[in-house]
Amino acid sequence: MSHEQNESVIEALHECMVACNHCYDACLKEEDMNMMEECIRLDRECADICAYLEQAISRETPFISELAQVCATICEACGSECKKHQHEHCQKCAEACSKCAEACRKLTM
Amino acid sequence: MSHEQNESVIEALHECMVACNHCYDACLKEEDMNMMEECIRLDRECADICAYLEQAISRETPFISELAQVCATICEACGSECKKHQHEHCQKCAEACSKCAEACRKLTM
Amino acid sequence: MSHEQNESVIEALHECMVACNHCYDACLKEEDMNMMEECIRLDRECADICAYLEQAISRETPFISELAQVCATICEACGSECKKHQHEHCQKCAEACSKCAEACRKLTM
Amino acid sequence: MSHEQNESVIEALHECMVACNHCYDACLKEEDMNMMEECIRLDRECADICAYLEQAISRETPFISELAQVCATICEACGSECKKHQHEHCQKCAEACSKCAEACRKLTM
Repeated sequence: MSHEQNESVIEALHECMVACNHCYDACLKEEDMNMMEECIRLDRECADICAYLEQAISRETPFISELAQVCATICEACGSECKKHQHEHCQKCAEACSKCAEACRKLTM
Repeated sequence: MSHEQNESVIEALHECMVACNHCYDACLKEEDMNMMEECIRLDRECADICAYLEQAISRETPFISELAQVCATICEACGSECKKHQHEHCQKCAEACSKCAEACRKLTM
Repeated sequence: MSHEQNESVIEALHECMVACNHCYDACLKEEDMNMMEECIRLDRECADICAYLEQAISRETPFISELAQVCATICEACGSECKKHQHEHCQKCAEACSKCAEACRKLTM
Repeated sequence: MSHEQNESVIEALHECMVACNHCYDACLKEEDMNMMEECIRLDRECADICAYLEQAISRETPFISELAQVCATICEACGSECKKHQHEHCQKCAEACSKCAEACRKLTM
């Protein structure tokens, strides 16, 4: 993988991690938290795997393809859940997840 | 997965994480570090993914099978490298990696 | 720090991480999640710092005292919050947090 | 803390994490690894705490000041070590560590 590709995936992972954590924090402040259960759960899963993969790529992990595949799966699940909710933080998060999943899928080819 | 299975995998992951970090630390103190390059690198990869999966299982992640598969792959790679070296810390680490890989493989079935 | 002290702190951290993640997962399934907002938030904070410190100690981090101090602070905050709730998962978590905070405080002396 | 301050610290943490991991990877490829022992060790410590704090800030952790203080200490230690080595990756890393330590110190006031 070229250095430029690396940097663009790391950027997508970073933005997805931030969006997921913003969404997580905002969901915990929602009036009806029970509606947001799955969103809270998946935001944490997704933030954690994105943060993990960011680090792994930047230290040139030999397992980039395997890790990117799991990360794409988790981003897609989180994005699908977020898309269902009309809150701005959910919609932003869904978009970041979708971009990140796409960037990760490219690493698995 | 039953609660007992859960606990036994978490235990294997925990012991593998500790063994990898001990091996990492010991490798950094070896007289000829250049011999240990791959071992250092894989010890960190393996400790990090085991620590990650420990947490993910204990919070009932929905992605246990996907994560366990990656973790098994990384444990096997780390164990293979460690097995090549005669240092006690490497041999102990190889054993912990092999047990952990086996425990993870069961989660992917 | 002796090897035995090390092992006993790592054990306390590990049990606290597991208890916090169990509590986190159980809180997300509670009928009235809004009551559990702070508990969910602090469970994640506490699980993450315990998992972090476990790894850091096992790789002989030079920053054990500084990290143990932060970890003790977070364990105490999480324990205080959990103690307020009558759910069994919260009471168990409060106990694990309290033991872990105590173990961490000893590392800062 | 304002949203802008937040974003600028997260950026400094992210760049420091990437620089530390690049330096770590490059140190493992150096001809004389034994010279780089402390650098490798501190690069991992620093990358890990920066990655941790990035996530913690983005989820609005209540422990930002305590965590930023530890992070600043670790960044300073890593920067001091890196500064001793003439490799370009070490010099770049030292610079990123110094910027990040400064950004973290502001959060502790």
